Amino acid sequence: MIIIIQCPDQVGLVAAITAVLAKHQLNIISLGEHVDKDENRFYIRLNVEQPADALLLEQELKNVLPDNSLITINPLPQKKIAVLVTKEYHCLADILVRNYFGTLGASVQCVIGNHATLQDICARFDIPFYLVSHEQKTKAVFENEIIEKIHQYQPDYVVLAKFMRILSPDFVAHFKMQLINIHHSFLPAFVGANPYRQAYHRGVKLIGATAHFVTNELDEGPIITQQTIHVNHTYSADDMIKAGKEIETAVLAKALELVFDDRIFVYKNKTVVFE
Amino acid sequence: MIIIIQCPDQVGLVAAITAVLAKHQLNIISLGEHVDKDENRFYIRLNVEQPADALLLEQELKNVLPDNSLITINPLPQKKIAVLVTKEYHCLADILVRNYFGTLGASVQCVIGNHATLQDICARFDIPFYLVSHEQKTKAVFENEIIEKIHQYQPDYVVLAKFMRILSPDFVAHFKMQLINIHHSFLPAFVGANPYRQAYHRGVKLIGATAHFVTNELDEGPIITQQTIHVNHTYSADDMIKAGKEIETAVLAKALELVFDDRIFVYKNKTVVFE
Amino acid sequence: MIIIIQCPDQVGLVAAITAVLAKHQLNIISLGEHVDKDENRFYIRLNVEQPADALLLEQELKNVLPDNSLITINPLPQKKIAVLVTKEYHCLADILVRNYFGTLGASVQCVIGNHATLQDICARFDIPFYLVSHEQKTKAVFENEIIEKIHQYQPDYVVLAKFMRILSPDFVAHFKMQLINIHHSFLPAFVGANPYRQAYHRGVKLIGATAHFVTNELDEGPIITQQTIHVNHTYSADDMIKAGKEIETAVLAKALELVFDDRIFVYKNKTVVFE
Amino acid sequence: MIIIIQCPDQVGLVAAITAVLAKHQLNIISLGEHVDKDENRFYIRLNVEQPADALLLEQELKNVLPDNSLITINPLPQKKIAVLVTKEYHCLADILVRNYFGTLGASVQCVIGNHATLQDICARFDIPFYLVSHEQKTKAVFENEIIEKIHQYQPDYVVLAKFMRILSPDFVAHFKMQLINIHHSFLPAFVGANPYRQAYHRGVKLIGATAHFVTNELDEGPIITQQTIHVNHTYSADDMIKAGKEIETAVLAKALELVFDDRIFVYKNKTVVFE
Repeated sequence: MIIIIQCPDQVGLVAAITAVLAKHQLNIISLGEHVDKDENRFYIRLNVEQPADALLLEQELKNVLPDNSLITINPLPQKKIAVLVTKEYHCLADILVRNYFGTLGASVQCVIGNHATLQDICARFDIPFYLVSHEQKTKAVFENEIIEKIHQYQPDYVVLAKFMRILSPDFVAHFKMQLINIHHSFLPAFVGANPYRQAYHRGVKLIGATAHFVTNELDEGPIITQQTIHVNHTYSADDMIKAGKEIETAVLAKALELVFDDRIFVYKNKTVVFE
Repeated sequence: MIIIIQCPDQVGLVAAITAVLAKHQLNIISLGEHVDKDENRFYIRLNVEQPADALLLEQELKNVLPDNSLITINPLPQKKIAVLVTKEYHCLADILVRNYFGTLGASVQCVIGNHATLQDICARFDIPFYLVSHEQKTKAVFENEIIEKIHQYQPDYVVLAKFMRILSPDFVAHFKMQLINIHHSFLPAFVGANPYRQAYHRGVKLIGATAHFVTNELDEGPIITQQTIHVNHTYSADDMIKAGKEIETAVLAKALELVFDDRIFVYKNKTVVFE
Repeated sequence: MIIIIQCPDQVGLVAAITAVLAKHQLNIISLGEHVDKDENRFYIRLNVEQPADALLLEQELKNVLPDNSLITINPLPQKKIAVLVTKEYHCLADILVRNYFGTLGASVQCVIGNHATLQDICARFDIPFYLVSHEQKTKAVFENEIIEKIHQYQPDYVVLAKFMRILSPDFVAHFKMQLINIHHSFLPAFVGANPYRQAYHRGVKLIGATAHFVTNELDEGPIITQQTIHVNHTYSADDMIKAGKEIETAVLAKALELVFDDRIFVYKNKTVVFE
Repeated sequence: MIIIIQCPDQVGLVAAITAVLAKHQLNIISLGEHVDKDENRFYIRLNVEQPADALLLEQELKNVLPDNSLITINPLPQKKIAVLVTKEYHCLADILVRNYFGTLGASVQCVIGNHATLQDICARFDIPFYLVSHEQKTKAVFENEIIEKIHQYQPDYVVLAKFMRILSPDFVAHFKMQLINIHHSFLPAFVGANPYRQAYHRGVKLIGATAHFVTNELDEGPIITQQTIHVNHTYSADDMIKAGKEIETAVLAKALELVFDDRIFVYKNKTVVFE
């Protein structure tokens, strides 16, 4: 059973929380705690050996915590997700394979693409694929069609697995802190389009990828995880794109594991990650 | 103030410990906790904002903890160390520079070498250097001379910074869990002498270094930290030795930072590291 | 067009080889060269812009090179491979996905498993799967059944993608330098079975994986590539196995890319890798 | 003997160059070659076993190469450098230690600081230190004082080892492609001042450092090498600065090794690095 709590910091929070658990004879297997002094914010993640009555526990914890504390107990062991794609296969295929073998930590409900390219791979894994073209319609119409499809499945998260359309603030508002994006760059370098071509022309010796929650500012949401790999003068822009796909796949897989395992707290524009 | 505790695991330990701190209005800045289920062993490291009466606190913690709990409160902010060397400079120079600029987290009391090679660099930093040759004497006599020198300074730790003589069980017993060694290999690969030559002949694509506490078995003590770097077919055995020195310096520096900052627990042949 | 040559070293080899190319107005896009002084062995890989008459070129190169030179011109742009598996999916699924999307650099002809676990994933990608059980038969019979299946497809390489049976010298002799294995360890640490359990009990802070050609000695063939990742005290043996699967997938993918792109030379027990 | 050449690309360059070497019975130990198709530019670095008459060789190479080819033969085995510093010690100390033990690949002629902080460490290594304050004078006067000091020593390179004043285009023009800077960021992220504070506020999960040649644009010169390390939510801005110093030291050391070993070509705003 996982318990995650964030609230304003004050003396005695760990004692108060763990006393509640001890009262119920609950054993803490692992405990991650962090205080952000700048924000005076307290974060705790507890992995408890035994199951317990979540409603009762939440009430007892509320009694000892500050008002406005965010308490989540026993999050769904299996999250549900929708995936948005365009044409590139690498992130989606990795998700589909893990989903098929039961190691994703979530269940893929559907895939929505603005091109038909990835329809067949979804069919091979018996995952519903919906083609929602962005052509010959307004962005609002396009996004509403996507939202409708997503709402059919009530997913916990929507994963942008190389979805190449910029989403409007309205769309983002529909899925507050539920949108996870893989950005093909080591943010904040090379914000925006064609980062690998930018990287090539700058002659960088590292390229990277960033997984983040999506907020209204382009490429500006809370970062979940990021990695870099070495490149050199022998890499063309296309070689960088190819190498970038490997790192994008790895970074998104890592981010999803952290999110689905309830290891990420978001507060303002930053994350606290209990690995 | 840092508080570190290890003891047999049981329900309610975190609650009991943090209740003691809350009673004294002590604020926990960060808390690392780990339970080793295989060993039924509990480890906790608390970084507390305010100072407090260490003796009183220790007594109160003892009252709520199992017998045989190991409690350390407010460890010396500045450890004292002795360094043993042979001829290679890279680890020692790194330690001397950090010591000189006050960023080592410990204070170098003396350096003991079985060759005179590194005498001058010590003199330049005003650190006492003692030449204790291993030649024309038994290992017991050699080691007793070193022990005598070390005992003059009562260091908390003895760092083997590329000390190339194998130490006897008797010597090790004098400094139980106080001896930190940098081993020129990614243990457990290439135990023993000339690991880089072994690595060269095996054609490996990575070499590494390992910092560990020294126990009686050669290269077998609890590992503190280790790292690897890529090598390739263009590396001669000498090139591997040269690259290895860079990684040895980095790994030992990292290990010493962790040890001096009281982030390492040792139990049996393993470490728990709260980074 | 790729040209790869290895031969005993002597003065003037690069001049002799490149003069042949210049005579035909062939432009060298990239050139990797290495001389192993210990072995007095010369290796060169040339990426030539234009196609050319391979037979004529090979003859002209032979005329200017030492006897016994190994010359390969214009290797098949698309290699054919067979894959051997047991129960673990991660390496096979990665190969099948890349094969399906045309980015593997080779074409998967068939998969042979000693368990039926991975039959379905192969079916989903329309790849023939053959179940060859090792039960109730001698190793010789078992291996002969596999060899027969492989021979139907005449693959250039046989990839052991987590194939968990030890192969006999006879089997290995059938596929000299055609067998590529992913070993679940940073060789030469933890040779043999259950390396992650060995790693767990040793308390290592890094685990790794090694891709290598298979020779008769267990885990002793020429290493193609290897990588490590950090682990810590919170990892159970099972967590290490899980993390190990990620690194195994990445290391095997990298090794196959290098092999299929003709970037690996093997001589005695080592590789020369032109990345 | 190292030979480095860059020139416009054309068919037959490698053959022409290596024929000259073969004529003199010179043996090529290693050869790095690169063609930048976008720029139609050819780069070659040859490590030749035997010494030779450099003037004669250069003339013979000129005869077979395009006009305007840049040929450097037998570069000084020991470069001379000047170092500019402000207050931070980590990069300078690393350079002084390597210089003292003869492993820098260059000889430190003098250190110039705009603060006196690092005077003592230079004195301990018998290296001349000049205090050139930037206070109460124009930038032109300040820079001219530095230029005068540097000119006394005629160094091959000037290393900015955490020199915190922005240099004018006039200063840079005095030392074209001789100025090597370590920038406390993974460029192009966080250009300019206080990159670690920027990184902290953005909540990044990696920080990095970049070594580059200095051109007139701030932080915009050709990149030599760069690296990143992982950080997390527990890092304050000061912790990032501390971790950054380790990576800055490592990156600058690597860059200097590459430069002093004649492994870097610069063309326009990019480097070609033969590692």
